[in-house]
Amino acid sequence: MIIPIMEVKERILADNDKKAAETRRVLKENGVVLVNLMGSPGAGKTASLLRLIYLLKDELRIGVMEADVDSDVDAKAVAEAGAKVIQLHTGGLCHMDADMTAQGLEGLGLDGLDLVFLENIGNLVCPAEFDVGADLRIMILSVPEGDDKPLKYPLMFSVSDVMLVNKIDAAPVFDFSFDKASGRALALNPGLQIYPVSARTGEGFDPIANLIRQLCRERRPKL
Amino acid sequence: MIIPIMEVKERILADNDKKAAETRRVLKENGVVLVNLMGSPGAGKTASLLRLIYLLKDELRIGVMEADVDSDVDAKAVAEAGAKVIQLHTGGLCHMDADMTAQGLEGLGLDGLDLVFLENIGNLVCPAEFDVGADLRIMILSVPEGDDKPLKYPLMFSVSDVMLVNKIDAAPVFDFSFDKASGRALALNPGLQIYPVSARTGEGFDPIANLIRQLCRERRPKL
Repeated sequence: MIIPIMEVKERILADNDKKAAETRRVLKENGVVLVNLMGSPGAGKTASLLRLIYLLKDELRIGVMEADVDSDVDAKAVAEAGAKVIQLHTGGLCHMDADMTAQGLEGLGLDGLDLVFLENIGNLVCPAEFDVGADLRIMILSVPEGDDKPLKYPLMFSVSDVMLVNKIDAAPVFDFSFDKASGRALALNPGLQIYPVSARTGEGFDPIANLIRQLCRERRPKL
Repeated sequence: MIIPIMEVKERILADNDKKAAETRRVLKENGVVLVNLMGSPGAGKTASLLRLIYLLKDELRIGVMEADVDSDVDAKAVAEAGAKVIQLHTGGLCHMDADMTAQGLEGLGLDGLDLVFLENIGNLVCPAEFDVGADLRIMILSVPEGDDKPLKYPLMFSVSDVMLVNKIDAAPVFDFSFDKASGRALALNPGLQIYPVSARTGEGFDPIANLIRQLCRERRPKL
């Protein structure tokens, strides 16, 4: 199911974090877990999302907010994979903030859902600056981007809970060291959980699906 | 030569375009060409810049402004390649605007230079929104990012003069169609000049080096 495109508007809020805390409360009351998925353009956010939906859709009712500057190329594929999808347009803005996310959740509707993914704008800078109220922040670094990215975009690596190193099957082609990338990310954020994955082959997504499953069960013990 | 790190501050200007026009006038008076190099994190901005410096350094005196959110990992390699380099920190901001660019140009110093590259923040959204006063806007799309990026980040493809399709040697590994990417970009911007390149092998940079050389000769006929 695809909900028509929704234009989310930025309202300059005094306190983004207050709005994020409010969203967390609403999610908890409704038994829904929110996952914020971030990464560069082309890192593989949509492809990874499709893998996770495939692994989880038989147990969990999944909603997806596809945030884009100005397009809806991903929404159809995500809906076909078995999720309820709303396409959010940010009107040129390079991030989603807590208020825009709350607008999206209202448009999507929490009723009848266990899990919502926000596929954030493709960007390693701005999305890291805004707590949107998510229970889990997953960032994707893809092999072709290079293992120096934690040095150049430290905030993204600092605020994430999970880092997926995607396109790991292409590692032989690129001069990419998983150990260097992991070491640089862990230096910024010692608690970061790091998993090598390939959204192309499907390799490596089980541990992260398990982590999401566990969060959903903690929130809604009947699952 | 590397100039110590400079923190550029964003001042909210009434008119970014007015400041950009002023920068263009200053560049012209000083016989200097400014190239704004944009693209996602990991698209290959620094590697492409190194290739262009290598091709042009014997004829042109080159300056580089390395804009980063918060690091200086690229400045050393660029200086070693034979350019005068200033590292600009944006303090978390995801773009350079016209005023920040003017601050950087002042820090770098135009005297004794023919050509300045601004390596913009790795981002397909925000840098597209700001005219910095450049004579040429080059955006890099790398093969692993996917051929759908013009659909998702249309403004970047619309405001650029040149699009380099980098990592073209990795095309066999990825499901990337050069024709699709080019067609989608040209639909947005029929005047866009598109070149397949590989910053890893050096393949394909001669036409774009020629274009820059020509701009510099027009500006400073003695060259």
